[in-house]
Amino acid sequence: MKSPTRLAELIAALRVLPGIGPKSAQRMAYHLLQRDRQGAVRLGHAIEQALTQLNHCELCNDFSETPICPLCSDSARDTSQLAVIEMPTDLLMMEQTQSYHGLYFVLMGRLSPLDGIGPREIHLDRLIQRASNGTVQEVILATNFTMEGEATAHAITELLRARGIAVSRIARGVPVGGELEHIDSGTLAQALTDRRRCDTN
Amino acid sequence: MKSPTRLAELIAALRVLPGIGPKSAQRMAYHLLQRDRQGAVRLGHAIEQALTQLNHCELCNDFSETPICPLCSDSARDTSQLAVIEMPTDLLMMEQTQSYHGLYFVLMGRLSPLDGIGPREIHLDRLIQRASNGTVQEVILATNFTMEGEATAHAITELLRARGIAVSRIARGVPVGGELEHIDSGTLAQALTDRRRCDTN
Repeated sequence: MKSPTRLAELIAALRVLPGIGPKSAQRMAYHLLQRDRQGAVRLGHAIEQALTQLNHCELCNDFSETPICPLCSDSARDTSQLAVIEMPTDLLMMEQTQSYHGLYFVLMGRLSPLDGIGPREIHLDRLIQRASNGTVQEVILATNFTMEGEATAHAITELLRARGIAVSRIARGVPVGGELEHIDSGTLAQALTDRRRCDTN
Repeated sequence: MKSPTRLAELIAALRVLPGIGPKSAQRMAYHLLQRDRQGAVRLGHAIEQALTQLNHCELCNDFSETPICPLCSDSARDTSQLAVIEMPTDLLMMEQTQSYHGLYFVLMGRLSPLDGIGPREIHLDRLIQRASNGTVQEVILATNFTMEGEATAHAITELLRARGIAVSRIARGVPVGGELEHIDSGTLAQALTDRRRCDTN
């Protein structure tokens, strides 16, 4: 006894989703077919629409339905600052701070030679070109503080420094609300090194 | 700044999958669009095909591409036994034992009044009809040993007993390889109650 072919194919196809193994895929397939057929129709349609209608913004590389995304077209943004981030989610996090008003460049990943992700895959050529357009005064590296994010930040720093473009890295330290007792020593060491004077204005 | 509409819709649509929250949906959407567009095409197609081509077998209620599924059409099966199970996965588990050769009825759920799942939703009318066809000699209840699975088994027992049809329940006890030290006391108590004579043949 095998599963019906189209059911088996749906279960196999669901496994293209990250983090979904055979058991979860099976549960999802039964759920879609048995409990939420309308949801399944909606999902199929959304996938098709997103694949055909979504592209990357020519300037910031974020997902966009238009050649230039609304943020890059927004004349209220500060064009002298360019923040480099790994993923679109990071852009949303940055916007939520309401303390950054510059532009972005979304790498859509981070350097990861073992996974075959090199400078070309994260579009460093386009980033350099963008940063060299004459209006950008400072490139702010906001990649993650992981091994790969740090390596990516380092590589970008080298490339931009060679072209005389100012580069900065967002600060590393104790999180707001963080207690020293529960902070790892690497973070605490960095927080010490990067300490700021508070007796000057 | 909002996400592009079609991206937001894809992320929202992915949340119809069971156990997928906003963060996972976001990660899945980026993965499909960025890393596995072919997989996304395949998934969209598989959903559409499954929705249009898969139905329920008229006899056992399992998913099937034909009105009667291959298992129900198989003349080698023992038509005197009918096992009642909750989900198609359970059917696969039963088949893997290679010790059951009868037919099945798949409830596609279990009684769960709080979720609005009553006798009609798990097709008990069709089960009774099937069990009363004159060839079925014994109905074997193989629903889960959860609260809901037990309640379902109890309800089916009452319905079938009223019609004079023999009903049995698969055994509850210590799992093969299980050590008493690590078994919960409820299971052990049941294993004691259901003890089998071994001095008789």
